[in-house]
Amino acid sequence: MTSELIAVDWGTSRFRAFRLDGAGKVLDRLSAEDGMSTVPAGGFAAVLERHCGAWMKANPKAPVLMAGMVGARNGWAEAAYSTCPASPKSLANAMLKVTDRVSIVPGVIARDKSGADVMRGEETLIFGTEVKNGLVCLPGTHSKWARVEEGAITDFATFMTGETYALFRQQSLLSRLATEPEDLTGFDDGLEAAKDGTGLTNRLFQARSRVLGDEMAGEKVGPYLSGLLIGAEVEGAFKRYGSNHVITLVADGVLAQRYVAALRSHGASLEIISPERAFLEGLATIAAARSQDPTP
Amino acid sequence: MTSELIAVDWGTSRFRAFRLDGAGKVLDRLSAEDGMSTVPAGGFAAVLERHCGAWMKANPKAPVLMAGMVGARNGWAEAAYSTCPASPKSLANAMLKVTDRVSIVPGVIARDKSGADVMRGEETLIFGTEVKNGLVCLPGTHSKWARVEEGAITDFATFMTGETYALFRQQSLLSRLATEPEDLTGFDDGLEAAKDGTGLTNRLFQARSRVLGDEMAGEKVGPYLSGLLIGAEVEGAFKRYGSNHVITLVADGVLAQRYVAALRSHGASLEIISPERAFLEGLATIAAARSQDPTP
Repeated sequence: MTSELIAVDWGTSRFRAFRLDGAGKVLDRLSAEDGMSTVPAGGFAAVLERHCGAWMKANPKAPVLMAGMVGARNGWAEAAYSTCPASPKSLANAMLKVTDRVSIVPGVIARDKSGADVMRGEETLIFGTEVKNGLVCLPGTHSKWARVEEGAITDFATFMTGETYALFRQQSLLSRLATEPEDLTGFDDGLEAAKDGTGLTNRLFQARSRVLGDEMAGEKVGPYLSGLLIGAEVEGAFKRYGSNHVITLVADGVLAQRYVAALRSHGASLEIISPERAFLEGLATIAAARSQDPTP
Repeated sequence: MTSELIAVDWGTSRFRAFRLDGAGKVLDRLSAEDGMSTVPAGGFAAVLERHCGAWMKANPKAPVLMAGMVGARNGWAEAAYSTCPASPKSLANAMLKVTDRVSIVPGVIARDKSGADVMRGEETLIFGTEVKNGLVCLPGTHSKWARVEEGAITDFATFMTGETYALFRQQSLLSRLATEPEDLTGFDDGLEAAKDGTGLTNRLFQARSRVLGDEMAGEKVGPYLSGLLIGAEVEGAFKRYGSNHVITLVADGVLAQRYVAALRSHGASLEIISPERAFLEGLATIAAARSQDPTP
């Protein structure tokens, strides 16, 4: 049993806050455009006060826990990365207090011999899936695939899938032949193309050369790029972690549909949880871990 | 023995012209910023006249042969792609006459079951290498690897290496932590990273996460990206065509140095020819093939 909690998901482009009762039920919520990239240095406390001041006043005992890029270098304060294995307990112990009642959940760093990788915000979502042993996939601008063992994150890998899609779809030569409305069957062509060993920078050019060669209509270009990049992500994740897991997918909307299609085409079994639910359950789990014996 | 020739390499961003004698020796040359992307529709003849009018007047019999993007959709006139196998003879037969004395060398299309690929301008360089059987590598914004058999191009693959580098180095989140002057040893780190099966969109993120994890300095980011993308190109080309060829590299300057380093790290034997020499020899070869019996 925990006390009331104010949960803040403060990312680069958006501020989301939830007022939760002791059982984790959402009593109130709000969403605003005050992403941390819009907040000047020293201005974070004021933004929090503006959005959550009334809640904080109404229940002076409710701690405010924040996760996301708010704990990054250019955020409210830099919450140093926690190392793997990272559990709700280890993160709770490492939380950074920025005021008497406001704390930030740190991100996580994985130090694999193939190079360091980092996440900030996704750790909270991962714990919210309640996966004890398995593979968690969190699609996005920088998708994350995390391996969870005995309830702790032991390794993870980032894929710049969303950002790469945006760069090529909007700012590369490939954008010139892309037309709308889109033909979504191009997505399957992209998934198939991701299997070609010639590699991504070759398969990306196919989005142009197939159109010039009258093998693909311009309406398929966007969906082809989507299928290619998501397909490449799934292929890479399975190479790294093996493909015999039940994948827990943290996604909703169109993105969830696309990842489900990609994972199913690889014969994967999967479960889905919405990012909002994963965030709320994750933050509550970390809050509960903090309330326990503080020694790790 | 051929007559004097005016050779024009008219690409997207640059106009280069050479006055060649019957033995292929360069009598005169010029270079201007009138790339075809700067020329309005219908304005091409005037640009040619401005730059080469004096040469054309001095020798009214010298044909003007042009290669490059000038034969593309938005160029002087669209020279339809020739198909594989493409030889100097087949291209000579397919040249597009735009005026009485001016002709454009067509590009080439490869129709592989893995999808169509296209080139425009590189076919001329490939014939200039005089490779009869082998693999030709032409680095660039859109690098090409071509398989030549019995003097004809039978297949090729494009890699968006240069464009991908520019997009990520200048317009992605990866640019934020990159600093200068660059530490070129990062190139070898990138080459090594290209071997990692997790894939390109993961290895690209390493350019950020290794810096955040204090494993790599910001000065290495640019060179790391270069090594990663060139390494991925070489890996992909070898997967597609096999790795037991002598590679003929059409490149000069810094780009040649980087590709030589990448190819040598894969144990490849290679020969190098400068793009200018390949262009001149290639155009002369095509011109000579046109002068022969016109039937294929």
